[in-house]
Amino acid sequence: MRNVTKDNITDVFVGYMGPDMDPRMKEVMTSLVRHMHDFARDVNLTHEEWRAGIAFLEGCAAVETEDRHEFVLASDVLGLSSLVDMLHSSPEATSSSVLGPFHVAGAPDLPVGGDMKRDFPGPVLVATGIVKDTDGNPIEGATLDIWQTAPNGLYASQDDAQDTYSFHGLQKTGADGRYAFTTVKPVEYTVPSDGPVGDILRACGRHPWRPSHLHFIAEAPGFRPLVTEVFPDDDPYLDQDTVFGVRDDLVMSYQNMPAGSFPDGFALSGSVDEPYLRVDFDLTLVRHSV
Amino acid sequence: MRNVTKDNITDVFVGYMGPDMDPRMKEVMTSLVRHMHDFARDVNLTHEEWRAGIAFLEGCAAVETEDRHEFVLASDVLGLSSLVDMLHSSPEATSSSVLGPFHVAGAPDLPVGGDMKRDFPGPVLVATGIVKDTDGNPIEGATLDIWQTAPNGLYASQDDAQDTYSFHGLQKTGADGRYAFTTVKPVEYTVPSDGPVGDILRACGRHPWRPSHLHFIAEAPGFRPLVTEVFPDDDPYLDQDTVFGVRDDLVMSYQNMPAGSFPDGFALSGSVDEPYLRVDFDLTLVRHSV
Repeated sequence: MRNVTKDNITDVFVGYMGPDMDPRMKEVMTSLVRHMHDFARDVNLTHEEWRAGIAFLEGCAAVETEDRHEFVLASDVLGLSSLVDMLHSSPEATSSSVLGPFHVAGAPDLPVGGDMKRDFPGPVLVATGIVKDTDGNPIEGATLDIWQTAPNGLYASQDDAQDTYSFHGLQKTGADGRYAFTTVKPVEYTVPSDGPVGDILRACGRHPWRPSHLHFIAEAPGFRPLVTEVFPDDDPYLDQDTVFGVRDDLVMSYQNMPAGSFPDGFALSGSVDEPYLRVDFDLTLVRHSV
Repeated sequence: MRNVTKDNITDVFVGYMGPDMDPRMKEVMTSLVRHMHDFARDVNLTHEEWRAGIAFLEGCAAVETEDRHEFVLASDVLGLSSLVDMLHSSPEATSSSVLGPFHVAGAPDLPVGGDMKRDFPGPVLVATGIVKDTDGNPIEGATLDIWQTAPNGLYASQDDAQDTYSFHGLQKTGADGRYAFTTVKPVEYTVPSDGPVGDILRACGRHPWRPSHLHFIAEAPGFRPLVTEVFPDDDPYLDQDTVFGVRDDLVMSYQNMPAGSFPDGFALSGSVDEPYLRVDFDLTLVRHSV
């Protein structure tokens, strides 16, 4: 097309695509570019604003490292990550929620009832539940990849003072489908706000806080993997999670348990004669469609 | 919002924005995120496709340097750069066209009639025209920032064999508004296709070619700056410029001029007794609105 105009450029783009292109790629690129062009037309995007957008992407590039995933964070705070999660959640399964940028593969084994708290300070939390199918049957041999922040609000990957895998564990369920571990109560924390994503949050009058949570990836042969989180029902940021991760069925009561009631089968490096917290959270997985 | 869903997340995003936010920022971010979410919903974007998008951005980040602007290139081949140009073109002015990722600020002065070709091989091209206002009056003291590829199809910033500013010049018009210089006929060239943007082009069954062109940024006190290009009317890529830069009024005939007719007032380091090419291209600027 020799005379491209603001009104025909989207069709010109579509016309440039080749006949042998993968049909799904064509569908996705057509929709992506149509929405991108409609956005520019709808707001009459200026050169200055376009440059600000490019500068944002270049700013993300400048801080991106193996341990700092600014593009993922941008997707998280704009709600795209959560939206993709929800588009592919099964209504019969536990809701999925954001993976976030801090998951580290290769966590060490954590036996059922194992201790992730070790010598870190903070309230003891006992977390347990059943990994089950949609009929309520326990799933044996499910693996749970579990991670959370340390009491200082930092993940191991953000914190030189922690081991690579502190507050990370990989647990396998037995015949009863039960998982169980001892940890410290997670704290609310802020997503990294010293980069371009933080600038966007400030420009939008938003805070960088997330409600406290434990992360899980649950996998079992024959079932769809589930990435999710569990939140305590008294968290002040439940209604304004900056990455849009809260779902009703992921909000649980963290019960205050009295001294002397520490359950059998849970390891703890400190005293078992103190009050502690307990959360029960079952994870329901759906089978792969056949 | 405690129970974010795929249907309410866009409104939740809008609800998170603070009351003191800049109104234009709010308008742009609302439209951007609404289109981004609609895109994901329209195509039912999968996690795998989301990861491919993140990997694309991270791949751009990995090749981005001071001289390699992959995010700008992505905007160019998706038509966004040209669309923004066209949204802000004045119908009375010469059409604007893409700046592209290769402009380098600080070009050396090029006197009227000066020689950019120097000792490079290739067909001699004489380029000239009047910088004028919308009433046809010449503009004195307009500056033209001129750049193009060398005969090998590379810009100076892409080519270690060239000086920083080879085929770059800054020219100021006199009372007659005339610009004039000697150069080499530009060649068709490919945008850089060895990075993530090249992968997108290939996946879309597209080529990376641009028709040959000279770039101009024209500026004059009291007038809106104009970023544009001029194309020869016999170029094979006029109808499929991979960055959507061609407009009817930017396509000019490059006239074949006989030996012995080389015009006065044009410098040339080689023989002036050979045939050469000539393009006449006037640039019309509009005044800043008052």
